Amino acid sequence: MSNLKILPLGGMGGVTQNMYVYEYDNEIMIVDCGIGFPDIQMYGVDIVLPDISYLLKQVNAGKTIVGMVLSHGHDDHIAATGYLLPQLPEFPIYAAALTAGFAQNRMKDMGVGREVQVIKDGQPVTLGQNFSVETLAVTHSVPDTKHLIIKTPAGIVYHGTDFKFDESPVDGVKSDYARMEAIGREGVLLALSDCLRVEKNETIGSESNVGPVILAHMREVKGKVLATMMSSHLHRIQQTVNAAVELGRKVVFVGRSVEQNVQIALELKKLFIPAGFMIDKREMSDFPDNELCIIIAGSQGQEGSSLVRAVYGEHREVSIGPSDKVIFSADAIPGNEIPYYQSIDQLFKNGVEVVYPEIEPGIHQSGHASAPEQLQLLKLLQPKYAMPIGGADRHRVLYERRVAAQANLDRQHTILPESGQIVEVGEGRVSFGQTVELHPQTVDGLGIGDVGKLVLSDRKALSQSGMIVVVIPRQGKQLRLDNIQVISRGFVFMKEADEVIAFIQKRVAEIIDSLGKKTKDGEIRKAIEKRLGRSIYKIIKREPVVLTAIVDLK
Amino acid sequence: MSNLKILPLGGMGGVTQNMYVYEYDNEIMIVDCGIGFPDIQMYGVDIVLPDISYLLKQVNAGKTIVGMVLSHGHDDHIAATGYLLPQLPEFPIYAAALTAGFAQNRMKDMGVGREVQVIKDGQPVTLGQNFSVETLAVTHSVPDTKHLIIKTPAGIVYHGTDFKFDESPVDGVKSDYARMEAIGREGVLLALSDCLRVEKNETIGSESNVGPVILAHMREVKGKVLATMMSSHLHRIQQTVNAAVELGRKVVFVGRSVEQNVQIALELKKLFIPAGFMIDKREMSDFPDNELCIIIAGSQGQEGSSLVRAVYGEHREVSIGPSDKVIFSADAIPGNEIPYYQSIDQLFKNGVEVVYPEIEPGIHQSGHASAPEQLQLLKLLQPKYAMPIGGADRHRVLYERRVAAQANLDRQHTILPESGQIVEVGEGRVSFGQTVELHPQTVDGLGIGDVGKLVLSDRKALSQSGMIVVVIPRQGKQLRLDNIQVISRGFVFMKEADEVIAFIQKRVAEIIDSLGKKTKDGEIRKAIEKRLGRSIYKIIKREPVVLTAIVDLK
Repeated sequence: MSNLKILPLGGMGGVTQNMYVYEYDNEIMIVDCGIGFPDIQMYGVDIVLPDISYLLKQVNAGKTIVGMVLSHGHDDHIAATGYLLPQLPEFPIYAAALTAGFAQNRMKDMGVGREVQVIKDGQPVTLGQNFSVETLAVTHSVPDTKHLIIKTPAGIVYHGTDFKFDESPVDGVKSDYARMEAIGREGVLLALSDCLRVEKNETIGSESNVGPVILAHMREVKGKVLATMMSSHLHRIQQTVNAAVELGRKVVFVGRSVEQNVQIALELKKLFIPAGFMIDKREMSDFPDNELCIIIAGSQGQEGSSLVRAVYGEHREVSIGPSDKVIFSADAIPGNEIPYYQSIDQLFKNGVEVVYPEIEPGIHQSGHASAPEQLQLLKLLQPKYAMPIGGADRHRVLYERRVAAQANLDRQHTILPESGQIVEVGEGRVSFGQTVELHPQTVDGLGIGDVGKLVLSDRKALSQSGMIVVVIPRQGKQLRLDNIQVISRGFVFMKEADEVIAFIQKRVAEIIDSLGKKTKDGEIRKAIEKRLGRSIYKIIKREPVVLTAIVDLK
Repeated sequence: MSNLKILPLGGMGGVTQNMYVYEYDNEIMIVDCGIGFPDIQMYGVDIVLPDISYLLKQVNAGKTIVGMVLSHGHDDHIAATGYLLPQLPEFPIYAAALTAGFAQNRMKDMGVGREVQVIKDGQPVTLGQNFSVETLAVTHSVPDTKHLIIKTPAGIVYHGTDFKFDESPVDGVKSDYARMEAIGREGVLLALSDCLRVEKNETIGSESNVGPVILAHMREVKGKVLATMMSSHLHRIQQTVNAAVELGRKVVFVGRSVEQNVQIALELKKLFIPAGFMIDKREMSDFPDNELCIIIAGSQGQEGSSLVRAVYGEHREVSIGPSDKVIFSADAIPGNEIPYYQSIDQLFKNGVEVVYPEIEPGIHQSGHASAPEQLQLLKLLQPKYAMPIGGADRHRVLYERRVAAQANLDRQHTILPESGQIVEVGEGRVSFGQTVELHPQTVDGLGIGDVGKLVLSDRKALSQSGMIVVVIPRQGKQLRLDNIQVISRGFVFMKEADEVIAFIQKRVAEIIDSLGKKTKDGEIRKAIEKRLGRSIYKIIKREPVVLTAIVDLK
């Protein structure tokens, strides 16, 4: 009997860039196709894509991709479709209605027009000879989030992507505990589970607790109310809309992402706005400030976002004054604290009233299960093996030590693969297989994958101490040391640095003099770059990038 | 009657870089002399220094600096002394014993040997004709922290730098409430107060609560215990030492900052280690792992710190294995989350037991007063005016709205100066004076102040898309378009980019062809840099720094 192979293409130990390969015999099924966000060292990189070279290799070797299922509508689960699908053969794609809408919108951005078929809970789809996938509802920070029951000849895998257990969800769609329990009785071999909030021991509060807090903060605001949140967070948006409607404020959506998401959600009836309450941003001036509620993108303080432009007075339609109130219904995403608090500080400085989680914890709730909820899932599923996903390494290990252990899974039955490591599932056992080297692809501007490790390390070096270019003319065989040009940026303030240039010219001449007449150009360049760099470091303890050009008159 | 002027040289609305100028008639008194930490946009900058050009100007105009008082031993209050004192005339410097020791150590690093005189609580020193400064004890995260009562002919100013109200401090030295109340009765015109933790409404717990938590986590560890914290946090270090001693573990200090601070504290009897319990790091191998407690620098995951080198197996004396336990007795400083959690993740990945605040909140306590403690200070002092310091803009405004308002100070009596704005104190009134432009000085390697706005914006541009240098030789008056050299770094992976180079050469030739024969070199360079940049952006949506060199054969 063959084994099922599971290969996470996104960084195991990372939270984003979710893409999972399920492979059985000659068939491959894919779960999710999400982007990653560059870390602080990836200078200039906009987003990161999962490395699909393993997939391409398998396809070339004759394997068939029988389908893709998208679990929910967050960008780290769907937004790589527009980049990656064109590189792959055609196959059917399935998702719940809203997820399908969001994914198709993402694809449209990239000029990709692939159909996404809507999958219904409890109605499994068969993919190829070996896979059947059934979705079931779970609660999370975007509607239509699904867990997947993946049946294969090697056994049942429960793909438990991002979720929490919300007992009073905003849209009334609770997590399907009955189905979890039933599939548990049927026998789950391996359960994958969201582990991001494993550090928390208290149950995460219901999303519907946030609504009354928003309403309370919207009351008695003299001017405009502005609310900002993750722009796919339709439960939050719904509750903000409800509060606005209750207080007789018109709702205005501002910002490309939120405007698009709202449009899709309205069409799919995943968001409800009473007639007459939604107005266009260009109509705002027809209403007094105290009849407006602006739901605006930019909850992370992103440079160039609608909110940030409004904060700094650079938005065409939206201004924010001292009688207005801004509600940040979102935490700072880790690593994002600086721009997030910069916006808040600037608003305070401008005398604006601001509500944010540090002073009003109820204004935001996480969409991810805490440790007890993760344990509850395991108890319902009773899997033989568990594998935490969607968390950093500390979360994965804590899941093993705190959650799986409590569900009586010993360490051998909790699977923590390294990035690229294939998990083999077969004969009632789960084990580690070979490791595939993964090189996530960077997207910078319109270039994909051309910004690799070398370019990034150059950018880092350039950012730290700038650069010096030494240009040496050559006449015949004679390097003209009397005519060395030095160009520099980001090193020292060059207008005050005639003596710096003179020093570099002198040092370069010395270095060249010390080399033999027959030294090759490459050697000359290397000698200058190394020895000039060392001299500079000795003087000022900086390491600019040093480049040398030898220019011949032919 | 003259006015007292107060000018914060550190960024108002920033937390660090503390330095306050008090000026009356021809005399100037300075409180603190601290460094700032570069923000994420200040590429390559190590630290930031307060701009003292106002001070230099006043000294040149005949004013006298009559003294400096240092409030406590944190680097953002003392560590600029080594850089700035050599630029200023001599004057007496005062600080409590430990602060003096730390400050002199900082100065020694820079080869500066100025004496710091020890000031005793309740024994005012007279500075010049117009100032008398008295210190009083407050609790904070470093021993010997002082608030200052500054008496001037214009009235009494209470300089309430970083503090909290800890009812059971580790060293037994409580905040001197009686003196605060007494000076309040005497009449405080203006109170400056730490506002950093104004978002918190609960009293910050006592530092002495942390000790038992450390002890509990140190018990039954099979291997080594490693503990990391801010290296000036001697109360935390004392409690860690106490726990180690109780469990019969030898204490080892590793890391330059913690080793130096411990040495100074032992000499000044601010830290107590029973005889025989402190061993040198080179003796560690003489003891079994379960008899060792290593107190190690690097609690923020700083690149190159002892802890980080140990985490990645690169430390000569310290290794960390699966039977060891690492205690992070420190929060991530805002903006530092990425390296902080990287260390923790790596340790988990290596199978090490890790304790950190998210999973054990009691392992760390803030050293800063929450809103109720800030209010308590105001109630004791009953000042006519209040001015929050040491916080971001949101903290300053929240202090005004939540703390000062509750102490019945209306908005006009809460002073929130802009950066560089002089606060005028006189005739029982406090008001805003002129604004001084402040340009904090950057320190990068051994260079001070030569990395200004222009260099930093170049570094940012270089970091985002790298750079392209175009070298054009000229023979006589003829630009040799057949021999254009292109050098690039950080733009695209150049080995695969012959066509990129060819494109640039062709485009540069076109641009030059389109210019008149008499175009000056500067214009040629400008045209290339602008138009080539635009062409590149059109193709790939990146904006590398473009530089042009024209090389003559003379």
